[in-house]
Amino acid sequence: MSTVRVHNFAISLDGYGAGADQSLDRPFGHADGRLMGWFAATATFRAMQGASGGTTGVDDEFARAWGPDIGVEIMGRNKFGPQRGPWPDDGWTGWWGQEPPFHTPVFVLTHHPREPLEMAGGTIFHFVDATPAEALELARQAAPGRDVRIGGGVETVREFLLADLVDHLRVVEVPIVLGRGERLWDGLEGIEERFAVETVASPSGVVHRTFSRVAR
Amino acid sequence: MSTVRVHNFAISLDGYGAGADQSLDRPFGHADGRLMGWFAATATFRAMQGASGGTTGVDDEFARAWGPDIGVEIMGRNKFGPQRGPWPDDGWTGWWGQEPPFHTPVFVLTHHPREPLEMAGGTIFHFVDATPAEALELARQAAPGRDVRIGGGVETVREFLLADLVDHLRVVEVPIVLGRGERLWDGLEGIEERFAVETVASPSGVVHRTFSRVAR
Repeated sequence: MSTVRVHNFAISLDGYGAGADQSLDRPFGHADGRLMGWFAATATFRAMQGASGGTTGVDDEFARAWGPDIGVEIMGRNKFGPQRGPWPDDGWTGWWGQEPPFHTPVFVLTHHPREPLEMAGGTIFHFVDATPAEALELARQAAPGRDVRIGGGVETVREFLLADLVDHLRVVEVPIVLGRGERLWDGLEGIEERFAVETVASPSGVVHRTFSRVAR
Repeated sequence: MSTVRVHNFAISLDGYGAGADQSLDRPFGHADGRLMGWFAATATFRAMQGASGGTTGVDDEFARAWGPDIGVEIMGRNKFGPQRGPWPDDGWTGWWGQEPPFHTPVFVLTHHPREPLEMAGGTIFHFVDATPAEALELARQAAPGRDVRIGGGVETVREFLLADLVDHLRVVEVPIVLGRGERLWDGLEGIEERFAVETVASPSGVVHRTFSRVAR
């Protein structure tokens, strides 16, 4: 059976996975680059941008685990864009330019379904109004036998955790206090009982926590 | 100048330093022993209890740093006991028995001052209605030249941080999600800018973060 994985999901010390006031210019809201600075510094991220260099230590090892064996991603609408409500006719195709880094089908959860959007490099965005379980079923049909990545944002990851549909969760704790935004852990009291947790501190200052679901 | 220190201050992944529903039997509320389990396992804690054995690794190194050079502690009333409002005539002398582990003056912040309470082993509880700055002045007068420990609970540590009176803060992140209780970081957005942060992960699963205030 393919597994459901969350990677490189950064949160602040106070548990926020995104800041407040997301906008076109600020996908992470007032957090800006602070949650993902460790990731932006890695060789893996730089290679995605067509650049060389970057860090090659533990942060890079975690960063690169994002891709292998993944056949499909599920993301929330707020990860795709800052729009709310019915889609405006604004030509928006996501934050990632003409060739997004996914190179797989991507299911975007929205209450406003629309036609699929095919990008360069193999990424196809499908816009579906579905529960987490329904979306997972669609994703598995789209990529039989491959793993499914839950790409965020905060609400989407939390909903999949609440529905107990996540096998591997890799959280990155960043030593900042955001104060405002969306909290990952709300409503998840006692979730540690469902997972084995492994912890590594990086010299960059972030902590990588790997939650692996214990057998049921 | 003596420094102001916080040690062994454990919080959950969602930032709670104490659970909900504190009572006589449950000083940490519904968190019970989960926040301090790593500490209870150390040789330092066991020695405080007159027992031998216990862990001697990184958790123990952090645990034992609690005492040296400290001449006085300041704690909030909720660390001293579960009572609220005027003191009942219940003979309560704290959670720690006849010989508390402090062995110094301890200033208990309360809106209901009362006579000092002298315990075996050198601990004297003083009950004062004071702001953090006022309490710190009293503490320094009581132990000239020695360091001051802010002992908790959550609200007391947060108030001293808000007043920018803490030089060294040692937080221990425990991989549990409490869901309810008192949050350490509320109101402290951006506090990391005032501190250098150093991080160590322990094999026990907890993470030790040392916040050292940068020179002003």
